[in-house]
Amino acid sequence: MPTTDPQLMEKIVSLCKRRGFVFQASEIYGGIGNTYDYGPLGVELLRNVKNSWWQRTVTTRSDVVGLDSAIIQNPKTWETSGHVSGFTDPMVDCKKCKARFRADKLDDARCPERSSKKPTECGGELTEPRAFNLMFKTNIGAAESTSSVAYLRPETAQGIFLNFMNVLQSSRVKPPFGIAQIGKSFRNEITPGNFVFRTREFEQCEMEFFVPPAQNEQWYDYWRKERMQWYLDLGFDAGKLRMREHDKSELAHYSTGTTDIEYEYPFGWGELEGIACRTDFDLKRHSEASGVDLRYFDPETKERYFPFVIEPAGGVNRIALTAMIDGYVEEQVEGETRALLRFHPEIAPITVGVFPLVKKEGMPEKALEIEAELRRARLSTYYDQSAAIGRRYRRQDEIGTPFCVTVDGDTLKDDVVTVRHRDSMQQERVKVGELRAYLLASIGAWKRPPLG
Amino acid sequence: MPTTDPQLMEKIVSLCKRRGFVFQASEIYGGIGNTYDYGPLGVELLRNVKNSWWQRTVTTRSDVVGLDSAIIQNPKTWETSGHVSGFTDPMVDCKKCKARFRADKLDDARCPERSSKKPTECGGELTEPRAFNLMFKTNIGAAESTSSVAYLRPETAQGIFLNFMNVLQSSRVKPPFGIAQIGKSFRNEITPGNFVFRTREFEQCEMEFFVPPAQNEQWYDYWRKERMQWYLDLGFDAGKLRMREHDKSELAHYSTGTTDIEYEYPFGWGELEGIACRTDFDLKRHSEASGVDLRYFDPETKERYFPFVIEPAGGVNRIALTAMIDGYVEEQVEGETRALLRFHPEIAPITVGVFPLVKKEGMPEKALEIEAELRRARLSTYYDQSAAIGRRYRRQDEIGTPFCVTVDGDTLKDDVVTVRHRDSMQQERVKVGELRAYLLASIGAWKRPPLG
Repeated sequence: MPTTDPQLMEKIVSLCKRRGFVFQASEIYGGIGNTYDYGPLGVELLRNVKNSWWQRTVTTRSDVVGLDSAIIQNPKTWETSGHVSGFTDPMVDCKKCKARFRADKLDDARCPERSSKKPTECGGELTEPRAFNLMFKTNIGAAESTSSVAYLRPETAQGIFLNFMNVLQSSRVKPPFGIAQIGKSFRNEITPGNFVFRTREFEQCEMEFFVPPAQNEQWYDYWRKERMQWYLDLGFDAGKLRMREHDKSELAHYSTGTTDIEYEYPFGWGELEGIACRTDFDLKRHSEASGVDLRYFDPETKERYFPFVIEPAGGVNRIALTAMIDGYVEEQVEGETRALLRFHPEIAPITVGVFPLVKKEGMPEKALEIEAELRRARLSTYYDQSAAIGRRYRRQDEIGTPFCVTVDGDTLKDDVVTVRHRDSMQQERVKVGELRAYLLASIGAWKRPPLG
Repeated sequence: MPTTDPQLMEKIVSLCKRRGFVFQASEIYGGIGNTYDYGPLGVELLRNVKNSWWQRTVTTRSDVVGLDSAIIQNPKTWETSGHVSGFTDPMVDCKKCKARFRADKLDDARCPERSSKKPTECGGELTEPRAFNLMFKTNIGAAESTSSVAYLRPETAQGIFLNFMNVLQSSRVKPPFGIAQIGKSFRNEITPGNFVFRTREFEQCEMEFFVPPAQNEQWYDYWRKERMQWYLDLGFDAGKLRMREHDKSELAHYSTGTTDIEYEYPFGWGELEGIACRTDFDLKRHSEASGVDLRYFDPETKERYFPFVIEPAGGVNRIALTAMIDGYVEEQVEGETRALLRFHPEIAPITVGVFPLVKKEGMPEKALEIEAELRRARLSTYYDQSAAIGRRYRRQDEIGTPFCVTVDGDTLKDDVVTVRHRDSMQQERVKVGELRAYLLASIGAWKRPPLG
């Protein structure tokens, strides 16, 4: 099984840098905490994950609409949501060396700090735990007298609740319906880590689904299944996915249930997405705090009520990382190791590599012509004429390109190319005129191959 | 001419709120400065503008790759770029009433502050101008001893320069080539305004195009034309667009030339996009400050050099606003005013409205079936069965939906629907089986109609 490989994370991190998926942010200045930039392939992977989520959640549904709210909202938003007072980690300081730790992550009552200069544990006395707020703070406005504290949003969800009535009034929706949003959130985490699994700056894909209270359980069940199904449809290994229902002690006081969709990462089981019942907690609180009635008026029953909310919330960066970890395979082919990323073709950064078999006899010209035509049809392509054809296939395998098209001597006579499939390495002869349709059909027909 | 309408901005703002394009952010808490959220139609407009830009700039070109760098970078980035010391507005304070103003926007040497309580000018003495930095500041990290000041990026460009060498090493590109990025930037503007034209939080679409220094002028010229052509291809009124070359006094000291593509807004000519020659200024500065050699090594000439940079930089929100202003038309039809947004079909939030002629006789079922099929083909659709058919057409006109499909009694017999075109109001009969292809062809064939 590939993902039990103890070196898997190292291989992914190395591949990410070498091929342009992910770079350390501000690398030339020594980086900045656990922050990352996405290179040419990474940005296409993120774009495709976001598009896939949006099309699944918004475009192809008639009961969900989208939203894009600002990162900096009125700070009352975060007072009401409880983030100003409650979104904290308990921290302790060492009285001796001044290091700071998350109290709930310490095994010991003494300071565990070590440094390269002093490799033994500090052992200093620790303070009582104090709450450290995870929101990034900033100031808005120019005039000192009127400048005010503001926060970078720690979640996109509240922007949806703030706009609940605006959406109701402008969009002719009614419960059950959802409002979906993709956007950056920021958490001043004490312990980010595991590469892009947990970072201070990250992109969320969240949806608040508003339902009549009596339909709460039914829709909670629906969204747990639907969200799990999306990962299966993306080709994620069913054996590495599980649903974990939170027990009472983990639940927020207002929640009637929360389920994590977990994935078995090389570093253990971790949350891939959470589906939470938030009840009417948020809309009620914002109504009380703002004085604006956020109840839905049902024109049929003439009742006014706060809908209950089911929230599926995922992280774009984490989904992309999981797609890489889940898709990474090494197999032995003709005495060599073949590394490949078995992305669903819909999220692969490059859909089709286009090669001339050799760099002469008009083949490059023909291949470039075909590539330009596929580009114009908005397929993501990559032209490569360097090195032996086998080597070029391997380069595309490693970045997850599902199809390669090769122009050979015959192509110039009969207008037929070879299409080579990433997963099976099988090759087929396809007429140039039918190439685009063939590729689109192959994208649609893709299935995760069984593990060898 | 529609856009000389003095009420045009008010009409756009009102339409935006009423139909769900743009809402005031944190409205239920009284807003927060000049900040806006995008509703169900607005988020689709933004998505389409971004996709159109990305496909034009990245996907359909072989010489540009993408990037997605973090908003919070190592603060040395902004010291080197000059933003920490130089990205400032000159501010003056009134010694009497303590109000603060941008010195370069004041007509008078005395305080012009008025309030509802005191409608006469304050007239107080003003301080000497002081520099006010436009970057949002925050703190990163938990431990007080190691927490550090950080900035929200005021532009996406620097994230591209920081990754220049990473992209070179991972992506087999060579000058002339570009790195493109879409993402949020933040500027603590003193005077945001004109609705979403200038906001503190905004989304940029920027590209740094790296060229051998000798090709600087040629590529500057190329990108000015190419960027202008994009707006023309989107259907923007050529009579309201112009190129304005900066004169020497406006140019940054390192720049050999900058051109603004300007649009004639209801509030006057304003910058829609800037195309700047940044020379080798940024790469050189980052090389010096970081100690990392960011010169490109040309394997043919064996030379190492800093490429020159051409930067086309636009704002997604401003482009979307301009598309609304430019597309808004009111015309008299059968004694009534018809308001429409003549969006290019590629950026219209909804591509096709689907209606049953009447709410009976199996027409709603058939229309819903057709709508579901178009949705599955990932066209953005809207089903509407309420009110008279003429009223439903008007509703779609007002939000810029280019096509409406109506199912009538005949459809149930002959499987033929009526397709109605937004701009011409012409109707055609199309077979259901050919509908998708017909709509895709119509999207591709769209041209801005001549003004009446």
